[in-house]
Amino acid sequence: MTVADPSTTIRFLMASRQCELNSLRGLLQSGELVGRISQLVHMLQRERGTTNLFLCSGGRLCADELSLREQDVTQAQAQFMAQVGVLEQRAASLPQASRLFSRTASVLYSLGLLPGLRQQIRQHNLPQPDAMAAFSEAIRHLLTLVFEVSDTAAEPVIARALIAMFSFMQGKELAGQERALGAAAFAAGGFSPTEQQTLLDLIERQERCFDTFVSFADDDNRAAWQALVTDREFERLRRLACTRLPGNMPPDGSLHWFALATTRIDAMKQIEDNLEQALMRLCRERIAAAEQACLDQQADVSGLLPTPDGDDHGYSVFIAAPDMAEAGAGWLDSDGVRPQLGRSLLSLVQQQARRLQSLDNELAEMRATLSERKQIDRAKGLLMQHRGLSEEEAYNTLRRMAMNQNKKLVEIAAAMLAVADVLGDPD
Amino acid sequence: MTVADPSTTIRFLMASRQCELNSLRGLLQSGELVGRISQLVHMLQRERGTTNLFLCSGGRLCADELSLREQDVTQAQAQFMAQVGVLEQRAASLPQASRLFSRTASVLYSLGLLPGLRQQIRQHNLPQPDAMAAFSEAIRHLLTLVFEVSDTAAEPVIARALIAMFSFMQGKELAGQERALGAAAFAAGGFSPTEQQTLLDLIERQERCFDTFVSFADDDNRAAWQALVTDREFERLRRLACTRLPGNMPPDGSLHWFALATTRIDAMKQIEDNLEQALMRLCRERIAAAEQACLDQQADVSGLLPTPDGDDHGYSVFIAAPDMAEAGAGWLDSDGVRPQLGRSLLSLVQQQARRLQSLDNELAEMRATLSERKQIDRAKGLLMQHRGLSEEEAYNTLRRMAMNQNKKLVEIAAAMLAVADVLGDPD
Repeated sequence: MTVADPSTTIRFLMASRQCELNSLRGLLQSGELVGRISQLVHMLQRERGTTNLFLCSGGRLCADELSLREQDVTQAQAQFMAQVGVLEQRAASLPQASRLFSRTASVLYSLGLLPGLRQQIRQHNLPQPDAMAAFSEAIRHLLTLVFEVSDTAAEPVIARALIAMFSFMQGKELAGQERALGAAAFAAGGFSPTEQQTLLDLIERQERCFDTFVSFADDDNRAAWQALVTDREFERLRRLACTRLPGNMPPDGSLHWFALATTRIDAMKQIEDNLEQALMRLCRERIAAAEQACLDQQADVSGLLPTPDGDDHGYSVFIAAPDMAEAGAGWLDSDGVRPQLGRSLLSLVQQQARRLQSLDNELAEMRATLSERKQIDRAKGLLMQHRGLSEEEAYNTLRRMAMNQNKKLVEIAAAMLAVADVLGDPD
Repeated sequence: MTVADPSTTIRFLMASRQCELNSLRGLLQSGELVGRISQLVHMLQRERGTTNLFLCSGGRLCADELSLREQDVTQAQAQFMAQVGVLEQRAASLPQASRLFSRTASVLYSLGLLPGLRQQIRQHNLPQPDAMAAFSEAIRHLLTLVFEVSDTAAEPVIARALIAMFSFMQGKELAGQERALGAAAFAAGGFSPTEQQTLLDLIERQERCFDTFVSFADDDNRAAWQALVTDREFERLRRLACTRLPGNMPPDGSLHWFALATTRIDAMKQIEDNLEQALMRLCRERIAAAEQACLDQQADVSGLLPTPDGDDHGYSVFIAAPDMAEAGAGWLDSDGVRPQLGRSLLSLVQQQARRLQSLDNELAEMRATLSERKQIDRAKGLLMQHRGLSEEEAYNTLRRMAMNQNKKLVEIAAAMLAVADVLGDPD
């Protein structure tokens, strides 16, 4: 491999294209994983809600449905695990594989808790909040896995679709928590003031997630979401839940609430499925385009290469700045190399560098948005860990600090992360 | 592969560690590449300066030295190319390989121009500014490659060492440009006002690079740099260059300048070599630590695994929250699984996730610094491309805008990148 041989430059140019293609193929598989996660989360959400109805009604409601919900989860879980196997085989080519695998271990651990949990639930051996927490924890780890995948995607358009999908999934999970919490409280006969506050928080945080979704989604899916009107009867139950005192609830409000919330969440799942399909379509389009680009590049460079003649002056004399090309013009014929080689090669090299740079700029802009979100999440995590706060309490603490200091939430989060060391280890 | 089997969780936990180890091994190879680049850049810098002396003295100075300088470059280039071959083989496991390879193609292209260039130089067929530009371009592409490698390093301590190394190399390259420009101007009999301004810019930009270096370097290398005092005679020549009118220069000032500047740059190279050695030592230490961590983890999990007994309740009943573990305590003996499995596994999973998260936080902080630098570089590139400005002019334009608007340089750069589309294509 010598520098003077233009075929070396060409080889790296083509390797660059090929790597782009490979990473797109990897994104297609990541997209499939996200689809499986979407399905598994949906089923876990439903089992969580059903479990709450069962536990809070003292076993009166949904006893028969529990095993159906478990079956759905088991089936979705098998699909998910198959895709995790694909992930495992891609280990070598994954960016930040160690993080992805660590997240996967967390997911698998939390899913592994469910079988034993279900036995305790059926024996009424587990308080409802503990059951809800275990399901929510598994879902949280699954969503974190989606976030990792979105965060490492290097193609801006696909990264954008993944961020839209992730934001939507987060919003839907908050809607799922709202359903589960409401089902439990209606079944138990009413909402405590704490539960009412949690409900309000869940509603507000949904809005924020869907706002992020709206700013990253494609037109079709954004329109589909905006056309999705929250049912008026569901809104009425929400108001009832937030204002009425315990003991003053309609009979069987829990089943009514659960049915309406499920209709709403199922409609969300429909959009989520469309998002997933749009994502996969996008991946396939980009792969096809990248395959074509590889072929085009191959065609561009074939014929550019000089016939080997043992000359080691390289291609340098023919090219560089135009004046240099003229200075060296006399050498062309004696060498058997076509005069346009240098200029064509220069233009190919520059094109590729410029294209990657512009992709990179686009990505950097998106990452800035994501990074703010991440900083806020991390600061929230810190508060949860060190002060033993719930997610809502942590978020509210941050927001209160931001309002009091007239600063942006992300500034408060960044400041908190900067002093994290001072907080010390929670152990 | 089933969820309920704790060995699946353990497998991913161990895969996560293994991926960390692999990426550290990759960083060791990247470190070697950076070392080869450092050497090649050093030789190119010297050939550039010698060429300037030769061309501007009308061939009177350094005619014999040219081929020695070429030999040094050729040798360093062969070493570099060997390491590029290693890079090529690692393609599959490289983060953002497409960008790295595209950068490599740019490097190879610009190096491929040199043989023809040298022939024109020896025939006095090339103006000095063109010769200088061609050498500087090759060095610029080589430094960009170092930047890419630094930018994709996922281990904070090593990333920090790479950033220090990159900043130092950039500072040294500006010192190299200063030497080459001064050699040319002294040999030509004096500095034009434009050349004087360029010289001042080069001196000031060196300072900024070394400031960045100082904030990222380890203690030893920072101390070595701070102990390096600029020679008083060299400072005198600098003042002379910036103030004296053409035609009023000491005889043979160019050789004197070149010798003093070379002593200074060679001392810088000594520090750069130390930085490189520190970097490699760091990589090796981290690899050894990661290897040990893999072994420790293996020891931790061996013995944790249950004997296979066809039970598919999973490990869930033994663990989770402490209360759940107690709830399931009665099942332990009948199952043959050791009761601590669940809790130990949970602690391993959490430990790994927390460790990666804290590495990630550290990295994010450093990246913020780098990203500012990158935005400024990109904005500069935009100005160079669209307005046909030199690097100095582009930088000064940005700085002037920042001062006029009382804003930080990075804010101006970000604003410029945001409106980049409006600037249109330079073609």
